[in-house]
Amino acid sequence: MTEKPSPALETALAYHRAWTGHDFERAMTYVAEDIVCEAPSGRIEGAAAFREFMGPFTRILTGSSLIAAFGDEETALLMYGTETVPVASAPGAECLTVRDGRITHLRIIFDRAPFAAAREEATES
Amino acid sequence: MTEKPSPALETALAYHRAWTGHDFERAMTYVAEDIVCEAPSGRIEGAAAFREFMGPFTRILTGSSLIAAFGDEETALLMYGTETVPVASAPGAECLTVRDGRITHLRIIFDRAPFAAAREEATES
Repeated sequence: MTEKPSPALETALAYHRAWTGHDFERAMTYVAEDIVCEAPSGRIEGAAAFREFMGPFTRILTGSSLIAAFGDEETALLMYGTETVPVASAPGAECLTVRDGRITHLRIIFDRAPFAAAREEATES
Repeated sequence: MTEKPSPALETALAYHRAWTGHDFERAMTYVAEDIVCEAPSGRIEGAAAFREFMGPFTRILTGSSLIAAFGDEETALLMYGTETVPVASAPGAECLTVRDGRITHLRIIFDRAPFAAAREEATES
């Protein structure tokens, strides 16, 4: 991490701290109305749809740790670990585009396989 | 990306260019003998095991694009898209630790779900 966070990284970290700190409403204040999110499940458009995607995840979150974070004027790149109720270790990576202090584009990568396995196990039991 | 790549980023990008450019043997020259790789499937220890993990993937690779890349003295963080034979779009993220020009630790995140789905489809057909 650079010593003084870049403008994009500052916003990305504020967003990250908010949702990992279980303050999802505060996290949403950093999200642009017209955000485009590219997630493993596909493209998500607009703050309302993004809220439906990300909100439920924050409610199953039991722990998190920041692995690495970098950024420049408009782009931030984060990797982090999360612990969740169904999956003990679920790391993620995000590339965020920030304009005027709001996240306008967010590409998120994580492995859906352990979540699918946990769902299957829950259905079977 | 910073204007002059940091030492870690320079090695990470050289490694990345080599494997995405179908020169996996060159890519392996940037990998430390005692590399530890944390992958979605678990922990991989040593260059030989890493070769068995990463080599097959480079052989199904048909295209790639770098989405973002940052780094400092010892750490580099990359996000990229890949196109592969079984999965049309398979983005990945890597956090690499570099010491003396060699990658000693590599954490890689990608979604295994579409690869599992493609395997299942191939088995069924």
